[in-house]
Amino acid sequence: MPHRIVHMLRARGSGRRPVMLAIAGDSAAGKTTLTRGLVQCLGEDRMTAVCVDDYHRYDRRERKDKPFTALHPDCNHIDIMEQHLQLLSMGEPILKPVYDHSTGELVRPELVEPRDFVIVEGLLPLHTRLARACFDITVYLDPPESLRHQWKIDRDTNKRGYAPEQVRAELDRREPESAAYIRPQRRWADIVVRFAPVAERTDPPETPLSAELLLRPTIDHPELRGVLDDAEHRAMHLKLHRDTDGRPVDALHVHGYVSPEESQVVKKTIWERLDTPAELPDALGRLADGAGSDPLAITQLILLYHLLEANRAQAA
Amino acid sequence: MPHRIVHMLRARGSGRRPVMLAIAGDSAAGKTTLTRGLVQCLGEDRMTAVCVDDYHRYDRRERKDKPFTALHPDCNHIDIMEQHLQLLSMGEPILKPVYDHSTGELVRPELVEPRDFVIVEGLLPLHTRLARACFDITVYLDPPESLRHQWKIDRDTNKRGYAPEQVRAELDRREPESAAYIRPQRRWADIVVRFAPVAERTDPPETPLSAELLLRPTIDHPELRGVLDDAEHRAMHLKLHRDTDGRPVDALHVHGYVSPEESQVVKKTIWERLDTPAELPDALGRLADGAGSDPLAITQLILLYHLLEANRAQAA
Repeated sequence: MPHRIVHMLRARGSGRRPVMLAIAGDSAAGKTTLTRGLVQCLGEDRMTAVCVDDYHRYDRRERKDKPFTALHPDCNHIDIMEQHLQLLSMGEPILKPVYDHSTGELVRPELVEPRDFVIVEGLLPLHTRLARACFDITVYLDPPESLRHQWKIDRDTNKRGYAPEQVRAELDRREPESAAYIRPQRRWADIVVRFAPVAERTDPPETPLSAELLLRPTIDHPELRGVLDDAEHRAMHLKLHRDTDGRPVDALHVHGYVSPEESQVVKKTIWERLDTPAELPDALGRLADGAGSDPLAITQLILLYHLLEANRAQAA
Repeated sequence: MPHRIVHMLRARGSGRRPVMLAIAGDSAAGKTTLTRGLVQCLGEDRMTAVCVDDYHRYDRRERKDKPFTALHPDCNHIDIMEQHLQLLSMGEPILKPVYDHSTGELVRPELVEPRDFVIVEGLLPLHTRLARACFDITVYLDPPESLRHQWKIDRDTNKRGYAPEQVRAELDRREPESAAYIRPQRRWADIVVRFAPVAERTDPPETPLSAELLLRPTIDHPELRGVLDDAEHRAMHLKLHRDTDGRPVDALHVHGYVSPEESQVVKKTIWERLDTPAELPDALGRLADGAGSDPLAITQLILLYHLLEANRAQAA
């Protein structure tokens, strides 16, 4: 049972072991946007981000003849991904493969040396038990499918040169594998994050999306009572909730429609709990198009809380 | 002391652990020729060959600005090489980097899955203690420098498109690093192999080079008395010898000038000790230009003996 060995070795704590955060989710679910802000907050000298979608077994040309899409585990070097996650989690460097999205080719690999924090984002970081054993904190990004499809069409037409109908056809082709391999990872997340408009409201179109964070009792979440109790703060609320699989969970709702001033109070309160000397960083809540989102910023702050807590627990 | 951990883990013997053979030596020392025959004898389904010169940290263009050549450990991902050797020696697959000699570029890495036998050849496989801990048998190829220079000029002008004076200039540039990093590995070899003409003889130019094999008592060598005692066989002799570093060693001389029939008797005798059902393979002793060399064939047979013995010892 290699996943047990990893747990044991990681538990020993040599002092050099990095804190490992997984961000799993389907294509265009917002993984890179969430990751980017975290890296900017902690700095590249303290945090390494790794995308496990680089572990493609076949390049774009070779995939043409295959009966599956890039989402299928058989289309990826899952065993090497597991091996590299174990190495990173022990503080060892890896030579990571690189997939060039612009050409669809596998190119020169790159050296990745783990810092204090490693974020691993991608389609399948939580697919196997051994991979999951490598993480301190696991996140699954779970936007409504209609919204994710729109994000994917926007990105792949603007940045990767595809036509909208090509992206839609690809989404259809991938759907059975999304259902079989990507979405089941939601079960293994300590935190499930859903950015979406609030159903019953008709906010103006520029209103940032709200966030729902399912905080599972698999890790210790920050004590948010001080932030939540204050009646003045409409920005967030916490609700006990039964998840789709029947398991009890705390659902933290972060509202996109409140004023920046109200959000700012929440952000500052969480930031102060992180007990870092720095100022609240500008990079928090930055979207791909440059606009800002307070629900994203608050989500990132909660992840920062977990990262810094895990780092402190290890140093102790 | 990670090299001790590797020794311990390898000693456990899970049954899946491959036999690991290192073939170290300077550029154009004959590593690939020696390796090729061994792979053809045992078959690619039983043997994996890995060249550790693929672990270049910089491509050819990047190296132009560096104060060292490709021979320098700092020019290579030595830590990743060590990691991959450990993984292979435990029977784990690796995603190996690939350096394209024709373009000088680092390209798409390739999956390497260890078989029963792994040959690791290259410039620096014995450079560190941790790397050395991964091997069952270690070989250093040690031709006279004048001969190696000629081989390198022949190969690099015919196969890699260089002019002779370019190759000579490169050999000069590399000499201090050959002395500092490549040649010291000779010390760590169980077997030191030197192909060279026999000094006191004037054989016709098509005579195959003779081989001198220093058999160090760091591993158990095959009992060759039956082959050597027979006065009819001029093909080989064994001589107790004090090595350049003062350590005692057995020097096995395999003569290139004897008739094919005399060599054939020796080859068959060693082959029969290997106790394999197959016929003596044609691939033994094949040089890069297609010609045959009995001293090379006999060297390969002795390495085959070690590979098969180590495999048997493990299965026992």
